[in-house]
Amino acid sequence: MTKERIWTAALIIIGDEILSGRTQDKNISQIAVWLNIQGIRLKEVRVVADVESAIVEAVNSLRVKHDYLFTTGGIGPTHDDITVDAIAAALGVAVVVHPDAEKILHDYYETRGGLTEARLRMARVPQGAELIENKVSGAPGIRAGNIFIMAGVPGITAMMLDGLNGKLEGGMPLLSDTLGCWVAESEVADLLAKTERTHEGCQIGSYPFFREGRVGANFVIRSTDHDRLNKCMLHLADGLTALGYPSEFGGISPISG
Amino acid sequence: MTKERIWTAALIIIGDEILSGRTQDKNISQIAVWLNIQGIRLKEVRVVADVESAIVEAVNSLRVKHDYLFTTGGIGPTHDDITVDAIAAALGVAVVVHPDAEKILHDYYETRGGLTEARLRMARVPQGAELIENKVSGAPGIRAGNIFIMAGVPGITAMMLDGLNGKLEGGMPLLSDTLGCWVAESEVADLLAKTERTHEGCQIGSYPFFREGRVGANFVIRSTDHDRLNKCMLHLADGLTALGYPSEFGGISPISG
Repeated sequence: MTKERIWTAALIIIGDEILSGRTQDKNISQIAVWLNIQGIRLKEVRVVADVESAIVEAVNSLRVKHDYLFTTGGIGPTHDDITVDAIAAALGVAVVVHPDAEKILHDYYETRGGLTEARLRMARVPQGAELIENKVSGAPGIRAGNIFIMAGVPGITAMMLDGLNGKLEGGMPLLSDTLGCWVAESEVADLLAKTERTHEGCQIGSYPFFREGRVGANFVIRSTDHDRLNKCMLHLADGLTALGYPSEFGGISPISG
Repeated sequence: MTKERIWTAALIIIGDEILSGRTQDKNISQIAVWLNIQGIRLKEVRVVADVESAIVEAVNSLRVKHDYLFTTGGIGPTHDDITVDAIAAALGVAVVVHPDAEKILHDYYETRGGLTEARLRMARVPQGAELIENKVSGAPGIRAGNIFIMAGVPGITAMMLDGLNGKLEGGMPLLSDTLGCWVAESEVADLLAKTERTHEGCQIGSYPFFREGRVGANFVIRSTDHDRLNKCMLHLADGLTALGYPSEFGGISPISG
């Protein structure tokens, strides 16, 4: 097996509402799952405030470290939507009205009260950027080089991701399988470490939980190679059984809390 | 009003399971809300992989920028739990077994199969660190200078936060109130911007949603000053009514997606 190139991405969540705890983020997990299907690994996430300097710093730190950089939030029509300006500042380019975005918004708002100055803000892009289709609410996402500027509302982000399906180059998706087991992870720590060590190309994560008064753990095995993953999982399952802990393929769902 | 000192914190979520999308993070919002009660603002969050260099970089970048740094995840007994080692490396100190932690774990595991080598890993701390009580599962959290090392399991983190209640110096909590309104935010963007501009010490965030086929938005007003917050909110409510959009105090809950 030749060593395949791993494509990576970072994500910047822009929003005071996440940092205040008011809003429970849903974009990290949906973008992570979508990226993996494209063969791209999400390697780092930052949540930053609606403050231009904070956005600029994060953008310039992450856009050079990864193949792709996604942002969510701050692309609406109101005064607190400063993502486009901040990314343009980070890239050192002007903010311009994209003619196609203006046309999309003009058509969308034709029967919705007209294209006001505030709404026209949503046609502004960093110079040289392309649009990402938004079937839900008119205002498009934006691609500026390797930066993908997405909505903050998870349902709109989902539709924008849908529009990007298959358009980004990636590598092998990371496959994963889970073994669930009613065992304290500390009972089987040696087995986990040894199994990972003897199965090249596989990583094992251990995720303990408490449920109905019992401790348990889900062991997630990750690999880009299907056969290696299977071998590692069977080895771990046998090892758990030998220690007196039968496991369940597919994992045990902890109650959410 | 003299300008009060603002106390800030950052949070590092350590965990491949968040970056893979497998686990929906719950620690950002619970820690954000808890910090605000202490009078501390969460200003930045990073989610990093279970990789020592990634943790070290994030720790050293954030611990000097903020009054407090919290981490979650990676403090269990298994091979993928490397947070203590990474933070000790970041601080340039040794990893030592904390005698109180060893005693806590010894007592906890006395009736649970004994203190194995794997379990003793959970008594390891960066040299000079103190413990944070964990009433749930024995293994304590760790305070190393201004770094607070917490569990990844949200229920355990919650108990550790409980143990820290009132022990961290903070400033004025950020107060917030919400006006919910069945209006496209773009219709009232000017009003929002003008209201924020004319109410010093107040920030207004606009959070649109779609529900039952209608568009709406919650407008969140934030301030450390109760009177200013109230004045700003009433001004905005009057402005919305004048434009033909009556609003609801407390906001309108969007359906979760």
